[in-house]
Amino acid sequence: MIQNKIERKIMWGDLDSLGIVFYPKYYDWIDSCCHLFFEKISLDLAELWKERQIVFGLTKTSCDYFSPGRYHQEIIITTHIKKIERKNVTIKHIITNKSNDRIMVRGFEKRTCMNVKEPEALNAMDIPDDIYDIFKKAL
Amino acid sequence: MIQNKIERKIMWGDLDSLGIVFYPKYYDWIDSCCHLFFEKISLDLAELWKERQIVFGLTKTSCDYFSPGRYHQEIIITTHIKKIERKNVTIKHIITNKSNDRIMVRGFEKRTCMNVKEPEALNAMDIPDDIYDIFKKAL
Amino acid sequence: MIQNKIERKIMWGDLDSLGIVFYPKYYDWIDSCCHLFFEKISLDLAELWKERQIVFGLTKTSCDYFSPGRYHQEIIITTHIKKIERKNVTIKHIITNKSNDRIMVRGFEKRTCMNVKEPEALNAMDIPDDIYDIFKKAL
Amino acid sequence: MIQNKIERKIMWGDLDSLGIVFYPKYYDWIDSCCHLFFEKISLDLAELWKERQIVFGLTKTSCDYFSPGRYHQEIIITTHIKKIERKNVTIKHIITNKSNDRIMVRGFEKRTCMNVKEPEALNAMDIPDDIYDIFKKAL
Repeated sequence: MIQNKIERKIMWGDLDSLGIVFYPKYYDWIDSCCHLFFEKISLDLAELWKERQIVFGLTKTSCDYFSPGRYHQEIIITTHIKKIERKNVTIKHIITNKSNDRIMVRGFEKRTCMNVKEPEALNAMDIPDDIYDIFKKAL
Repeated sequence: MIQNKIERKIMWGDLDSLGIVFYPKYYDWIDSCCHLFFEKISLDLAELWKERQIVFGLTKTSCDYFSPGRYHQEIIITTHIKKIERKNVTIKHIITNKSNDRIMVRGFEKRTCMNVKEPEALNAMDIPDDIYDIFKKAL
Repeated sequence: MIQNKIERKIMWGDLDSLGIVFYPKYYDWIDSCCHLFFEKISLDLAELWKERQIVFGLTKTSCDYFSPGRYHQEIIITTHIKKIERKNVTIKHIITNKSNDRIMVRGFEKRTCMNVKEPEALNAMDIPDDIYDIFKKAL
Repeated sequence: MIQNKIERKIMWGDLDSLGIVFYPKYYDWIDSCCHLFFEKISLDLAELWKERQIVFGLTKTSCDYFSPGRYHQEIIITTHIKKIERKNVTIKHIITNKSNDRIMVRGFEKRTCMNVKEPEALNAMDIPDDIYDIFKKAL
C-alpha cells in the first residue's frame, strides 16, 4: 500500500475563537494531501484535466474529530487509497499529533471520475484503464 | 420543525481552478448557518461558552455533492435539527440552487456538548435540560 | 459617484483566537465586493474573461485597520472607484460597523487591465475605451 | 539582520478560477510567517498574550503583486523586520519563486503593541523594553 505523509504546523490563521482548529481547514489540508498523493503515484491532476479532460470530482467527504488541533502543534497527515470502484476512488486521510501519535482527525474523500469536455455538465465516467491500474497498484 | 434559511451568492474567492466551488467552502458556510440556526432558536453560543463554559464541538461532519456551485449563482442553505441524543445534536444542511431548487449539497454536523472549564481538556457532557428542551421544541 | 453597499454579519469562522476577525478575511470580502461593484456598473468579469480575454488582475492591495471586528457584528462594506489610469483602476472599500457607523477597515485594490490570451503570460494593456468610459461614469 | 525562510508549495485550494493564487491567501501565509519569525527570535506570541496580556495587532497590511503563483509551484517566503517604532513593528515579507528566484509578491504587516487586559478595548501601548531589545537585535 502506498502512503503519502505530509507534515505541517498548525498556524494562527487555522484557529477559531476557542483556540482550536476551525474544522473546514482540515478539509482544505486533506484536499491538498490528496493532490500530493496523486502526484506521488504519478497522476498529475492538472495534466489529466488539460490533456484528457478528466477530473476526479468530489461526491462525498467526511471527517471524524477525536481531539482538537492547537496553536503550533506539528501534525502528520497520512493519505492512502481506501477503495476503488468503476467510477470512484475513495481516499482516506489520517491526521495525527506528531508529538504523541494520537489520531486527531480521520476523514475521507470519495472522488468520481468525470468528463469535463463540456465544463457546464460534469458527467461521471468509468475510470480509464491506465489510471485504474495506477490506483490498483497503490492500493 | 424549525428551519433557518440563508441566501448567499457564490463569489470569485469561493471557486477553484475548474470554476466550481472549492468544497471546504461549503463547510465554512454550513458552520456559519449552524450558528445562525442556534441564534434563531435563542441559543447564543458565545454566551453559552462565556457564561456556562459549554460548547457544541464538532465530532463528525459530512457532505454529499450533487452538482457543482458556479460563479455568482444564488444559493439557499436550509438548516434544521436532524437528531438529538443525550450528548449530541446533529444539524442537517441542504444547499439548493435558488434558480431551479435543485439540491447541490446535503451535509450534516454532529456536535457534542462539551465542558470547556478546562480548555485543555474538552470533555463530552450531557446536554443540560434547558438546552435539550430548546432542541426538542425545534425538532 | 456610484457606490455599492454590501451588508454582512461576522461569523464564527471569520475569527481568530482573540475573537476578532482574522485580517485576510477582509481581503476576501473586499475582493467579493469589487466583483459585485463591477456587476453593478454592468461589467461582467466572467464575460470579459471568456469573451474578450481580459482580466483586471491585482497589482497592489492594502488595508488600514482601525477597530477589530467581532462575533456576529453587522458590517457594511462600501465600494467605489478611487482612481482611473490608462492601465489601472483603483477600487476603494470602507468597512463600517453598522451599529455605530464607525470605520473598522479602509482598504483598496489596484487592478491592472491584463490580456490573458496567453494565460501563461499576463500582460498589462490599456483599458479598452468602452470599459474606460464605464469606469469614468462611475467615478 | 535575522531572516526567516519558509518554503511552501502552492496547492489546488489556493487557486482561483484563472488558475492563479487567490490574493487573500498571500496574507494568510505572511501572517503565519510573521508568527514563525517571532518564534525564531524567541518571542512566543501565545505566551505574550496569556501571561502579559500583550498582542501585536495589525494596523496596516499591504502587498504588491509582480507575477502570479500557479499550481504546485514551490515558493519561498522570506521575513524580516523592516522598521521599529515606539509602539509599532513593521514586518516585511518577500515571496519568491523557488525555481527562478523571481519575486512574486512583496508585502508588509505593521503591527502595533496592544494591551488586551480589557479584551473589548484594544489599546496601543509602548513596546516593553525587553521586547524592543529583541526586535532591535533582529533588525
